[in-house]
Order: sequence, then structure tokens, then C-alpha cells
Amino acid sequence: MTTPPPSLRFEREYQIRFAHCDPAGIIFFPQYLILFNALVEDWVTDGLGIPYAELLGQRRIGMPIVSLQCDFSAISRMGERVIFELAVERVGNSSLALALDARLGDELRVRSRQVLVTTSLDTHRAIPIPDDMRAALAPYHPNR
Amino acid sequence: MTTPPPSLRFEREYQIRFAHCDPAGIIFFPQYLILFNALVEDWVTDGLGIPYAELLGQRRIGMPIVSLQCDFSAISRMGERVIFELAVERVGNSSLALALDARLGDELRVRSRQVLVTTSLDTHRAIPIPDDMRAALAPYHPNR
Amino acid sequence: MTTPPPSLRFEREYQIRFAHCDPAGIIFFPQYLILFNALVEDWVTDGLGIPYAELLGQRRIGMPIVSLQCDFSAISRMGERVIFELAVERVGNSSLALALDARLGDELRVRSRQVLVTTSLDTHRAIPIPDDMRAALAPYHPNR
Amino acid sequence: MTTPPPSLRFEREYQIRFAHCDPAGIIFFPQYLILFNALVEDWVTDGLGIPYAELLGQRRIGMPIVSLQCDFSAISRMGERVIFELAVERVGNSSLALALDARLGDELRVRSRQVLVTTSLDTHRAIPIPDDMRAALAPYHPNR
Repeated sequence: MTTPPPSLRFEREYQIRFAHCDPAGIIFFPQYLILFNALVEDWVTDGLGIPYAELLGQRRIGMPIVSLQCDFSAISRMGERVIFELAVERVGNSSLALALDARLGDELRVRSRQVLVTTSLDTHRAIPIPDDMRAALAPYHPNR
Repeated sequence: MTTPPPSLRFEREYQIRFAHCDPAGIIFFPQYLILFNALVEDWVTDGLGIPYAELLGQRRIGMPIVSLQCDFSAISRMGERVIFELAVERVGNSSLALALDARLGDELRVRSRQVLVTTSLDTHRAIPIPDDMRAALAPYHPNR
Repeated sequence: MTTPPPSLRFEREYQIRFAHCDPAGIIFFPQYLILFNALVEDWVTDGLGIPYAELLGQRRIGMPIVSLQCDFSAISRMGERVIFELAVERVGNSSLALALDARLGDELRVRSRQVLVTTSLDTHRAIPIPDDMRAALAPYHPNR
Repeated sequence: MTTPPPSLRFEREYQIRFAHCDPAGIIFFPQYLILFNALVEDWVTDGLGIPYAELLGQRRIGMPIVSLQCDFSAISRMGERVIFELAVERVGNSSLALALDARLGDELRVRSRQVLVTTSLDTHRAIPIPDDMRAALAPYHPNR
């Protein structure tokens, strides 16, 4: 009897820029969601090996968020380089539940849970997760 | 025995602009959060009678979000004029729970629950809700 | 011999919001360009009577900027309601030169000159200004 | 008699993201200005060796744009990795003229000229370029 391999996680470092910050001198919270969106984009392209621009452009498949939770536990300031990390929690027929974190060193800044749905960009209706994506998701979610 | 008056709600119409929309031709979801932020800004200024710019500028009091939930149930398209509505769910010592909706006609587009905290912009720590704000909140939350 | 009627101008008031402002507490300059873009959108829809969303959506005609000049002469602060104004300077075969201002009271904040081109959103190439738009432009540019 | 060394230039690659793109499927032009702003931020921090966040935060020195020209000669699409480059054209007492380009391979996408002013963030008035910045500017502008 063998232990299953641990699930993959995906991380990237993004810099908190002047353009992300508000008159309070800290990141404006919707910018976290734009950065988490960049993380998903980079994960699909580099982690799953499915060019995100091609997915949306030629293949006309979108991945909109249908449900979102965020807890903001500490502020991020201009100039910081924050680690954004993604793990897959659940894979459904046409949906994905992701757990996303942003942290600097030991300090958790934001924790988010997002449910994304694969949709046709022509009808904006849910479609099954395409086969190449489902296959690429396996190492991120071995015990499904 | 009298029935308490119903709580006030606050609403505004915002237009979904070209700048809000993504390559899928629909609103990019973080833009909803920027629009809900505009709603809170307009509510504090016009609903509570406390100029938001003065609150942050002269008084150095911020109102960051610490917790956020959103359900996106239908897409919004460029050019639509969507109704954004806010209700107060709970008033704490230094926090506010808000229920926010965006809808067009009978169709709910987004439902959000947000917990905001009043903070000092010098220390970024929570401070009690200022007295004038607490008083102004009463009609939005008569049965607290 | 009669004097030609003066050319129409188009103006709108937009509020400088928290989301527009940077850690310096003033509007982040690209946000002026997003607001000028809103002005063009409102002018096309309400001034020219051509729904901008329909122009881009159903008719697949874009109006990208090919050339831009801006002079920023005074800062704008959160909470201000700034007047944005547009005039037509020149109408070509597939291009429009616009003069745009933002001011508060007597104080000029920004002056911009923008050349826009009508393009096919399928090819991203210039196409002649559509007839209905050319006709609607006349009162904005009587001496062309 | 010796030839002066060539002036330094500074370049960075930035990815055109989903969040930068508009319903036309291409970059929304104000996003170029946000990317040029990122370039200036990275140049000040990494090229001049003056942490931009510290300049604005602790030192309370801003670098707003007072004058801007842009020519957009070709579109950029989601997913592209575009090279942004900066050169110093002129150094004044309290101002800097920068020439900025964005290109992919041989194709020029945008050319911009921007005049920035060093200001006090307390008064929003021009102040002389600080000595450490002036010294760091020298290799970018040897023939001043």
C-alpha cells in the first residue's frame, strides 16, 4: 500500500506596485483579485500547459468566477514582493474550486476560495471542462 | 405596540463601461468590486452624510474590507445601467457587515456580503466606529 | 451672409473616486485617460446618438486612439466633481481629432488632444467613418 | 580625444494580461500607461538604485507626469510578452524627459515621451531632483 503523491501547488511572486495602491498607501483590495486572476492565468498557461490566451481566443472557452470568498488578514504595501499560491480543492464536471493565498514570509495576507466554471464565450453557458485541461489537472488533484 | 420602521437601504445606478469589460465582452469581475466600493463611497457621503474624502483625508479614518463573499449569478454587458444596492446587516464596535446586490430589472447579477472595519490610517489598526457615523447608521439598522 | 452656428461641445461631470487615487492621495494619471474614454463613450451614445456598446458589439466597429497628447496642469483630489469636455477639431476619412479638457471651476486640470480611428474589430484595420456617425458629427464640426 | 560612452537604457518585459484587455480583445490603451508607470518604477528602483516605494513613502517625493505624448502604431494582444524600454532625453532642475517604447520583435507598438517632475508629496509642488537621483541619472544621460 502506497501513499499517494502530494498534490501539486502553483506559486508566483508578484510585486505590489504604485498602481495597485490607494490613498491609504496600501493595496486597494480589488487589485488582489486582479493579481489572483493573473495567478490563474499563469497557472493555466505554465502549470497546466494550456495557453490561456489561446483558450479564450481561438478556443472561445472562458473561466469566469461564480463564487468568491476572501479574508484579508494583513495589509500589503507598495514595493513588496508577495507570494501568491494556488491549490485545487475540487474538480467537478464544469467547475473548479481553487484555494488561493497571498503571503509574505510567514505572514498570511489574503486567503481566497474561488469557484470557476468553464463556459462557452459564445453562449456564456457552462460547458464540460475540456479533456486536455482535465488531464492536466490530475497532478494538482490526485485524490479526486 | 408599534412596528419598527423598516431599515433604510441605499441604491445607485452605475453604467457598465467599455473600461470595465474584458475580452469576453462582459464585465471583468474585479470591476464589480470597484463598483461596490463606489457604492460604499456614495453611501457614506450621501446616505450617512459623512464626506468620504474628508473621512480618509482630514480625519485619517479608513474603511477597509476584511471579509468578502460574492456570488456571480448572471453576466453584465457593456452599456447596461445596473442598480447597485446596499443594506446594513450588523453594526459592531469597529465593524460593519453590509449586504450588497447588483441587479438589472428582475435579474440578480451579483450578491455580496462584506465586512468593513474602521481603522486609523496612521496605524492601520481597528478603531471604534466614530460617533457621527454610528448615529448616522441608526436608520439603516433600527433593530440592532 | 450669415455667421455659421457655433460648433457643439459635449460635457459630463465625473467624480474623482477613491479607486482613481494613488498613494499620493491624488488621481493616478492613467485614470484621467479612463475618464476621457468614458467621456467619448457617453458622447458617442448620447451626443451622437449612436449606442457605443452596439457600435462595438453588433456592428464590430472600434474607435481606438492612435495618437495622444496630455498636459497635466493641476492635480485632482478624491471626492472632487470634475467637468470633462470634448470638442471635435478635425474629421478625416477614417479619423477624428478631439480636444478634451478636464476642469474644476476656473482651474484647468488636464488638456488632451486625441486622434481616434474607426476600425473593424475583425481586422483591426481602419475603415471609413460610418455614414450615420459622419452625419451626427456635423453639428460638432460645422466648418469642416 | 575620446568618444563618450553611450547612454544607458533600461528595459523590462511585461506580459499583456487578460486584465489589460478590452472587449476588442486587445490591450486597453490606458493599460500601456500603467505598464510604462511600472517601467519607471522598476527603473528608479533597479536602474537608479533608489527604492521607489521608499522615495514616495519615507522621503515623500513624487514623480508625477506633467506632459505626455503617445503614438500607438500596432496593437498588442493578450498573452504577448512585450519589451518596454526607457531612455533619458533631458534632465532639468526638477524635471526629466523620458523616451519610452514598447515593442515585440521588430514591431513598434507604442512610442511615448513623458516629462516627469519631482515634487513634494506634502505640497504637490516641484522640488529639485534629489542629489542621489541626479548622480544615478548620469550614466543614463552622459552628455547633459
